Amino acid sequence: MTNNDTIIALATAAGSSAIAIIRLSGNESISLVDSVFKSAKFQKKLSKQKSHTVHLGVIADKNTAIDQVLVSVFKNPHSYTGEDVVEISCHGSHYIQQSIIDLLIEKGARLAKAGEFTLRAFLNKKMDLSQAEAVADLIAAESKAEHQIAIGQMRGGFSEQLKKLREQLINFAALIELELDFSEEDVAFANRKELLSLVIKIKEIIKKLIDSFAYGNVIKNGVPVVIAGKPNAGKSSLLNTLFNEEKAIVSKIAGTTRDSIEDILVIDGIPFRFTDTAGLRKANDKIEAIGVSRAKNKIEAAKIVIYLYDFSDEFDQEFVDKIYKENKIIILAMNKIDQLDGIDNNWIKYLKTRYPKVKNCAISAKKGINIDVLKQLLTNIISKKQTAGLVVSNSRHKNALENTLTSLQAVQKGLDANLSGDLLAIDIRESLRYIGQITGEVAIDKDILGTIFGKFCIGK
Amino acid sequence: MTNNDTIIALATAAGSSAIAIIRLSGNESISLVDSVFKSAKFQKKLSKQKSHTVHLGVIADKNTAIDQVLVSVFKNPHSYTGEDVVEISCHGSHYIQQSIIDLLIEKGARLAKAGEFTLRAFLNKKMDLSQAEAVADLIAAESKAEHQIAIGQMRGGFSEQLKKLREQLINFAALIELELDFSEEDVAFANRKELLSLVIKIKEIIKKLIDSFAYGNVIKNGVPVVIAGKPNAGKSSLLNTLFNEEKAIVSKIAGTTRDSIEDILVIDGIPFRFTDTAGLRKANDKIEAIGVSRAKNKIEAAKIVIYLYDFSDEFDQEFVDKIYKENKIIILAMNKIDQLDGIDNNWIKYLKTRYPKVKNCAISAKKGINIDVLKQLLTNIISKKQTAGLVVSNSRHKNALENTLTSLQAVQKGLDANLSGDLLAIDIRESLRYIGQITGEVAIDKDILGTIFGKFCIGK
Repeated sequence: MTNNDTIIALATAAGSSAIAIIRLSGNESISLVDSVFKSAKFQKKLSKQKSHTVHLGVIADKNTAIDQVLVSVFKNPHSYTGEDVVEISCHGSHYIQQSIIDLLIEKGARLAKAGEFTLRAFLNKKMDLSQAEAVADLIAAESKAEHQIAIGQMRGGFSEQLKKLREQLINFAALIELELDFSEEDVAFANRKELLSLVIKIKEIIKKLIDSFAYGNVIKNGVPVVIAGKPNAGKSSLLNTLFNEEKAIVSKIAGTTRDSIEDILVIDGIPFRFTDTAGLRKANDKIEAIGVSRAKNKIEAAKIVIYLYDFSDEFDQEFVDKIYKENKIIILAMNKIDQLDGIDNNWIKYLKTRYPKVKNCAISAKKGINIDVLKQLLTNIISKKQTAGLVVSNSRHKNALENTLTSLQAVQKGLDANLSGDLLAIDIRESLRYIGQITGEVAIDKDILGTIFGKFCIGK
Repeated sequence: MTNNDTIIALATAAGSSAIAIIRLSGNESISLVDSVFKSAKFQKKLSKQKSHTVHLGVIADKNTAIDQVLVSVFKNPHSYTGEDVVEISCHGSHYIQQSIIDLLIEKGARLAKAGEFTLRAFLNKKMDLSQAEAVADLIAAESKAEHQIAIGQMRGGFSEQLKKLREQLINFAALIELELDFSEEDVAFANRKELLSLVIKIKEIIKKLIDSFAYGNVIKNGVPVVIAGKPNAGKSSLLNTLFNEEKAIVSKIAGTTRDSIEDILVIDGIPFRFTDTAGLRKANDKIEAIGVSRAKNKIEAAKIVIYLYDFSDEFDQEFVDKIYKENKIIILAMNKIDQLDGIDNNWIKYLKTRYPKVKNCAISAKKGINIDVLKQLLTNIISKKQTAGLVVSNSRHKNALENTLTSLQAVQKGLDANLSGDLLAIDIRESLRYIGQITGEVAIDKDILGTIFGKFCIGK
């Protein structure tokens, strides 16, 4: 899989800008650029320059200047990919970018595939697989929480922990396999008690990591929130107020149903994905029935339900009872309090008795009253759930961790049943293989690598 | 106007990408980055590193890592702006870009205004004004021809020529002003004949440059082409064929009338701006009359008119006669020749006799026959018109050149009329001032600088 042909791609975003960076990696990257670059300062070639130096000059196709550029040289292994890397900083014109890339392809470079620079970094052991995956997450991160998970993983905190656990297991596996060599003598090099306590310890850590996925996943995709309530409860007003106040609509994500649009709102660094719902009521016609049934599906998919009600209208106890049983996180928000003289304490007491696990607040969506209270309730829910330390946000990692856990359970069972070393060794090896898949310490299937790096942008 | 506070901006295009560059310039740029950057390699500060070197490390806000970055250091005067410059190459995530910029603003940098880096380069004499303006043109260039004009100007060919002319004039001005000091002695240091021939020579060069604006301008904005013809002559088919073949619609430009869209098509490196027109015929109703009258306006604004006619339909001789008199460049394109057995030579002869300056071709827009012939006719027209050497594409330069020409004419008149040295000196000084405005060798009004650099993007 490692080949050293020289790849090239635009590394910065497309579009008109002050500057753009074109990146090359591979054995020929320096000599290829040398063949089209004339420095303003030196007669010598770039290949004679030190690593990590920058040179002003002109890229020209024969005698036609394409652009005045800055060229940075990175010599292997001290580069992102571990190969010779050249970065050309040119003017940010589409025409210039394309001309330089075309020229260097003509000279022998090849257009990089998506993620190919990072794939090479992985293959050249500049980073492990989970770190490589975190690079893509880092680029896509749009909130503080998401960014912190990704940078923690990219800097290797997550893989460090896994590698340590794996090393300890490897030691035991080695000892057990040593026993097999002496099987006729019936010796036990590997202390079974110690192994058992290690397996239990690793299982606990892995369980924690698996649990952290719930947090990692909502942070990556936004915590799903639904605002439910009867027609005219003020759901749209609340959405508008929330979004206008934050002025932080990060993106519009097409929902699972084609007609629904979801908006991400970042509150205090945490992304919440708000879905609009049709008003909840008995449908009068077929089309409305579809809308209401879709709203119900969205409520099922949500992590947090804000039930919004007009203080002067009927409170839909049947609905709230139902979602309360479903173990959702619920916020009951009384709306339109600007039209109210005082809040009925008996009513709040009643709600607290009937739904002890639920948060209550009283707001005016239209006038923007107590919106900060509501936002605080939202962020508190998530911050409390946050696992201290490292967080798993990648479903490939979560699957591998679950598989590790299953095989560790088999090891534990085997120990409990006093299984022989050869059988134990099989289950330990299996655990090792699954942990190794996360960091790429075991051989990874070409297709899986293709899937992982295919999600990257070209140029990374 | 020169102030050395430290400015910061994103220099690459916005959007998710492999990498993004944040640029700082000013006295504090290196120390500001030092305050948030930790190198992987050295304990020393960036300020202790050599110019034009690149360093791997982490940008952190207190103890929270924001990103792993590459930092390039450029020490004054060896930088784009002539000041200390730092470029931070971070991951191309919007969140990271914003966090780093926010952090450095918190530390004391200021967000750069549009074009402020290049303005500083001009104020620090790293480039003259016409070169600075060419930077913006270079970034905006979308065709080979446009790019070549801009890079020629940015690399200083155009200003070199102007500076030489200006120096020669300055010599004469100095000699004439020397005469004034000795005015009582009635000596003539400045040879009037030599001055006259210099003025005539400069006038010729300036006229040529002014003439080149016609080319420079069409290249910058696209050569305006109108396809005219009766309804059903096949105008839309021709447009579709041209654009689909090239697959090179660079941009859609809103036309002068709100309902018209103009498309730029780059053929052989030259941009052509095609405008659609309503069919030419006597209008049946008022609305159609407006359409037809607009078509006529567009024909007036066009440089090239392709008159497209169906061989089996009436040829609108009245219309062609009219535009022929208007001195347009005309291509008569007979359409639908796929439905024709052979072309009537007499007809072609007749056209050649009646319109000797016109190009003829026979095409099928629908079947794509002879479209390359038509494109060749278009590019030939422009290539022939191209001024050899340097081209003016900036209307500010054109105006200054025209003013220079006017004052040089005054000098010439003065010489013819044997005007005294003091009067000649006034006109020569005026010419010098106008030439100097182009390159910025004379003091430029702050408002004018504001207008020039305000057109740049932020980060340039």
